[in-house]
Order: sequence, then structure tokens, then C-alpha cells
Amino acid sequence: MSKRVQISEVGPRDGLQSVDRIMPLEAKKAWIRAEAEAGVTEIEVGSFVPPGLLPQMADTAELVEFAKALPGLRVVALVPNFKGAERALAAGVDAMSMPFSMSETHSIKNVRKDHPAVLAEIRNVVAMLADIPFETRPVFEIGLATAFGCTIEGPVSENVVVRSAVACMEAGVDAVGLSDTTGYANPAQVRRLVRKVKAAVGEDTLDTLHLHNTRGLGLANVVAGLEEGIGTFDASLGGLGGCPFAPGASGNIVTEDLVFMLEAMGIDTGIDLAKLLLVRDNIAQALPGEPLYGFTPDAGLPLGFQRAAA
Amino acid sequence: MSKRVQISEVGPRDGLQSVDRIMPLEAKKAWIRAEAEAGVTEIEVGSFVPPGLLPQMADTAELVEFAKALPGLRVVALVPNFKGAERALAAGVDAMSMPFSMSETHSIKNVRKDHPAVLAEIRNVVAMLADIPFETRPVFEIGLATAFGCTIEGPVSENVVVRSAVACMEAGVDAVGLSDTTGYANPAQVRRLVRKVKAAVGEDTLDTLHLHNTRGLGLANVVAGLEEGIGTFDASLGGLGGCPFAPGASGNIVTEDLVFMLEAMGIDTGIDLAKLLLVRDNIAQALPGEPLYGFTPDAGLPLGFQRAAA
Repeated sequence: MSKRVQISEVGPRDGLQSVDRIMPLEAKKAWIRAEAEAGVTEIEVGSFVPPGLLPQMADTAELVEFAKALPGLRVVALVPNFKGAERALAAGVDAMSMPFSMSETHSIKNVRKDHPAVLAEIRNVVAMLADIPFETRPVFEIGLATAFGCTIEGPVSENVVVRSAVACMEAGVDAVGLSDTTGYANPAQVRRLVRKVKAAVGEDTLDTLHLHNTRGLGLANVVAGLEEGIGTFDASLGGLGGCPFAPGASGNIVTEDLVFMLEAMGIDTGIDLAKLLLVRDNIAQALPGEPLYGFTPDAGLPLGFQRAAA
Repeated sequence: MSKRVQISEVGPRDGLQSVDRIMPLEAKKAWIRAEAEAGVTEIEVGSFVPPGLLPQMADTAELVEFAKALPGLRVVALVPNFKGAERALAAGVDAMSMPFSMSETHSIKNVRKDHPAVLAEIRNVVAMLADIPFETRPVFEIGLATAFGCTIEGPVSENVVVRSAVACMEAGVDAVGLSDTTGYANPAQVRRLVRKVKAAVGEDTLDTLHLHNTRGLGLANVVAGLEEGIGTFDASLGGLGGCPFAPGASGNIVTEDLVFMLEAMGIDTGIDLAKLLLVRDNIAQALPGEPLYGFTPDAGLPLGFQRAAA
């Protein structure tokens, strides 16, 4: 188990994309700056979807530019397709993440592409990036979505996930991650699937898990991931956005609770939890009444709590 | 890791003791019966505290008598002291559980006894039980409370926990459990402390964890316990009672979420989750407006979900 784990804050993208009210650009900047100052080293600042489709994400290029100026921050954006990847490249992201839904039914319904069509899109992005000098080329990662189950298909074949991960690497992407888009994962499944995919693509090629807390198992699944050597976990501050599949239920795992767990376990996240706990005020002020989640923010830190690095 | 795990439902005791409104005896019976019918095989039905001190628990003897008539149910009650143990014995419990706070400050504040005084009380109970024929003698278990930290003392010495566990066994109790009374535990600590205590008292003597979800780590801590061979986990239906240390925060881990996690992992609990999810209606009707917790009850079961035993 690693003694150092990276948190990738996805709230400005995955959290906000489920929120109808547009958060003003300045509020998003203040949120990103506050998290970076608390020690968060990777933030997914937005998504290069067509602005008409998701107005909340229309300012992603400006956020990339802003976030790139913050010291020590890896700036990530989601790209749904080749067009989005072009825009992410032009904006100057450090990394772009493209979702690839392991449930082919979900993929067709969501982005109107079957698996071969998604792989063709991925190869086009790789070809575009190949022309860029290595030093300035952004990292291209694939998030294998619905990897633990799908609300339309139900169980998803682990062989499909493994084969797709291999196909992505053969297409020339830099890394793959596994996403529990639907909150279906359990710790035994996380261990099994991480192990299978790592065995197929290499230990370091799968380093990221994107877990949801829809059924309360988010942090339990993190423990399973840690034990399989995962080094990066996505999380959303205050669990912003909730779960689109279950109104009132939590979606992304909550950054505050995840950082508390890791630091309490003696795993260094580089994050100052006391500072991080203040950041949700930024969201509460910009989006009054928006439900926020998390246990540690309510309960506070244990008496005598010490950071892992202390 | 065990393929079969026992859930011990503690809601009627640990949940209700934090609820001011008295739940009518008939409603408690209906709840206990409904859980037993869903497949729960152990229920802590109440506490033999002085009725004047905690009127909610005044009907514990009647609940024991009722629950003993349900087929296949292990009926447990909490006993705070010798007097309570006498009443539990008279009521005919299958097992009595006495808390022993590892934080001596907490013990003195809570039951006005330092550690030697608690051990003396434990020895008195053992002596009383020694006169009873083995076949009818209830099991006597000690719950090592605040084992993972204390809201007054802060961190609790692991050596104190190990020494106390050994002292309990030397005093003649049947088993010890570890309780995260304050919701301070993290998975690394659970693994370490379970391993240390098992090494000191024997693999099978420590088989129960009582975990709270105050900071959202409850199920993550269960995973750690599972990996150390723990076979019984306490939980409370709907997380009833919340956390007395953090108003609005969850206390006990939620039975529904725990059963979902275990069954999804392929670990048989013997519980029919679909039936269990209906039981919270009993509580909601008897205690309208009482906050209930849990993710799985909101989100529902995943499409295609199958029981471990299926």
C-alpha cells in the first residue's frame, strides 16, 4: 500500500455538471484556488462538451487558463470526443480524460457510439497528439465508465473491461482508469477487477479509480483499491451534485471524508484537512441551498488528530 | 476472509437509547420480529440499565422474553454492571454484553469506575454465572468501548486495549469485542488493533466489531475487520439514533448498507435484503420524523443484484 496518495478533485466537473444553476466563473476560480492552497495537486476543472449542451461547462477553457497559473497543480479536463480533445489541447490542459462506457448500451445511448466507434475516436485523438512535442503534449487518459455495472445493462462483463483497457493501450493512450459511474461497485469486485486490468495492461498503467458513494460503499471501495496499489482517487468536495440516478443520494465520494480516512491511516495526501474543510463555504456561498454531503465536515476532526506527514 | 458473516442488530438498544420518545413495546416487538423474519440471527434487544435512568429501556425484560420465542434468534442485552447482569440472567438472555471503556477518564465519567473497579465488577458477574449449569448459562461478552479513541482523552493506547482484553479473559469472560464508540477508527488502525488483540487472546475470542459511521468510515472499517477474520459486525437499522457526539451525523453503521456490501461481496449474511429494506417502515411509523440514515435504502439495489447465497 502506498504511503502517498493523490486526490484528484473532480467537483468542478463531475459535481457541477449535475447542478442546473450556473456557478459564476469567479466563484469557480475561488473554489479551485482554495483547494489548491489546501494542498490539492490535481483538479478536473471542467468538460469540453458543446457549451450549448451543458452551459455550466461553457467556461472550461478560461478555468484551464486560470488553474494553469496556480503553482504545482495538475490541470485536467474531460473530453467527450475528438472535438473536445482539440479544444482541451488548445486550452493547454496538463491531462485530458475521455470516458469510454464499458456498457455498450450505455455508450450508444449516451454518446451514440458503439465500442468500435469509441476506439476509432480514441485513435484519432492519439494521432492528433502524436504531432505535438513530448514536453508540451498533454497526457491522454481513458476513464472506463460503468466498469462495475450499468443501470441499463446490469452486471458488466469483466472480460469486456479488461479487453477494452488493452485496446485503449494498444491505441496509444497514456493510462486507463476505472469508474464506478453507477455506484454498483463493492470491495471484492474492486480488488478483482483492478488486479485483472493491472495484469493485462501493466501495474502503473492503471493508477486511478473514480468511485461513487451511491450505496455508501465509496470509502470501503477505496480501501480495496489502496490494497491493490491504486495511487490516485477521484473525489468531489462536499459530494457536490449528488447522484443523478438516485435523487437525494450521494454521488461522488466526498473529498473531505476521503482525505480524513487516508490521513488517519497514515497515508500522506499532501492536503491540509483543516484548510480543506473551509473550502465548502465557497460552494455554499455561490450555490445557496445546494445539498452538500460528507460526514467529517459535520462531525469534525477527532481530538488529537494528526496529519500523516506530521 | 469468511464466506459467512453474522450481523448483530443493535438498533433496539444502541439506536433507541439516543431517542427521547419512547417507542411503544408493541412497535419494538414488530421491529424485532420483522428483522428476524428477514433473516437477522442476532439482536441486541435492550439494556438492563436502571429504568429510571433510561425509560426507553424499561421494557427490556419483556423484549427478551418475546425475542426468545422467535426461532433461530440469538437474544443479546447490554448490562452496565452486576445488577444489570442479574436482571439479564433472570430475563433469560442468550448473551449479555458489558461495556468496558478503554479510556479510563471516560469510564470514570460514564459509570464512575476506574479500570480496576470495572474488572472487579466483571469478576463478580463471572462468579455469579459460574453457578449456572453450562447448558443454560448465558454467554458473557465484554465490549471494549472507546477502543479506537475517546472524545475526552483523544488517542487511546493500544497497549491498554490489549492488556484489558487479556485481563477480561483472565477474569473468565467468554469473548471480547472492540467498539469504536466515538467514530474515530480508520481501516489501518482496525487491522492493527484487531491483529494485536487476537494475538493476545486468541483468534476466536475476538470475533465482534462495533463500528460507527460518524466520519463516514464505517464500512471501510468493516472491510479492514473482514480481512482480519472478524465474523460478527454490529449495525443499526436505518442508523437510528444518530451520533450523540455530532448532532445530525450518523452513529452506528447502517444495517441495510452493511448487508448490501457483504452480500454484494459474495459474503453470506443469511439476510434477505429486499425484506430487510422494508423493515425501516416499522421505525418510521412508530417514530414519525425520526431521522434515518443509509444510502442503499435511498438508491435501491443495483439492477441484476443477486444474494451471496443465490
